[in-house]
Amino acid sequence: MQRTNFGDMQCPIARSLERVGEWWSILIVRDALHGLTRFDQFQKSLDIAPNILTRRLNGLVEAGLLERRRYSEHPPRDEYILTERGRDFRPVLLALLAWGNKHYATEGQSVLVADKKTRKIADPIVVDRASGRPLSADEFRYVPGPAANERTRLRMAFAAGEIDPDQYEPGPVDDKTAKRARRRRRHG
Amino acid sequence: MQRTNFGDMQCPIARSLERVGEWWSILIVRDALHGLTRFDQFQKSLDIAPNILTRRLNGLVEAGLLERRRYSEHPPRDEYILTERGRDFRPVLLALLAWGNKHYATEGQSVLVADKKTRKIADPIVVDRASGRPLSADEFRYVPGPAANERTRLRMAFAAGEIDPDQYEPGPVDDKTAKRARRRRRHG
Repeated sequence: MQRTNFGDMQCPIARSLERVGEWWSILIVRDALHGLTRFDQFQKSLDIAPNILTRRLNGLVEAGLLERRRYSEHPPRDEYILTERGRDFRPVLLALLAWGNKHYATEGQSVLVADKKTRKIADPIVVDRASGRPLSADEFRYVPGPAANERTRLRMAFAAGEIDPDQYEPGPVDDKTAKRARRRRRHG
Repeated sequence: MQRTNFGDMQCPIARSLERVGEWWSILIVRDALHGLTRFDQFQKSLDIAPNILTRRLNGLVEAGLLERRRYSEHPPRDEYILTERGRDFRPVLLALLAWGNKHYATEGQSVLVADKKTRKIADPIVVDRASGRPLSADEFRYVPGPAANERTRLRMAFAAGEIDPDQYEPGPVDDKTAKRARRRRRHG
């Protein structure tokens, strides 16, 4: 997964998806955050074909979310432990959980997050760390960072309403996104 | 996308991914949140094959994240507008942005989020709405909701360290996850 040069991939969301933008990979990280570590545990949990599970676990190791740890020498067996980068993915899953519970839990919510001590149910929202303010679209905007190229700057200006839609010609934010994704679709 | 019965899909993360768990779909929502609405804009932004874009847009309309709006009668042309459900996906993208910026921006950050007025850069984190406390793994845990089945209850107990790993046999949290995903892999 990290064979290619990501230098001209501008969008941090696309960069993230490049590593985990796949249904199985995200559910593997979910399961790892639940405490699963072993191949057969993931396989039973996800009901996934072994060759696909092997490929996804390898991808997550290459992307630095999981690392292998030998737990048996005879026979040789590895387990998969979350790295700091993998544990840091938890907020993404909490945001997905909140969104799924709000919009797709017609039969009732099955999984919630609660304070360990008080058991009070939490309502996950995304805020700015320093001010604690929710990152609403009204009050916060995307801005180009120090490594932004011209296309990204234009996109951020457009997103903030600073460019007339008729004047804006969106170019690909990420040059290599499409090619890589197409390659993956073919060779997946 | 909503043809099947999601009744025995327990995990809200899997439920969410069922609707948007695909690289292109998430980038389309990202672009829609940037203000893109028209087929040719998405196509140029994503450098995506028209048939795949059509399929993903249809999927997002079926899943209720986008809705079509006719903007020209001759020739007939629709644009794609985010629904409330689609706009509510923003926190997931903010969490992905923060994670990507932290872990995969070796050449510098290209996109950031900032206060519209002060331009102060925000640091997106996920907290509990009522208390404002970060949802750290130390202080918060997953708990079964009212619609949880027995397997989900066991999984949440295991995730909280209440079941000895040697005693825990993970069953699939979501019965239909694997079958649907396999079907999708075949039929794209």
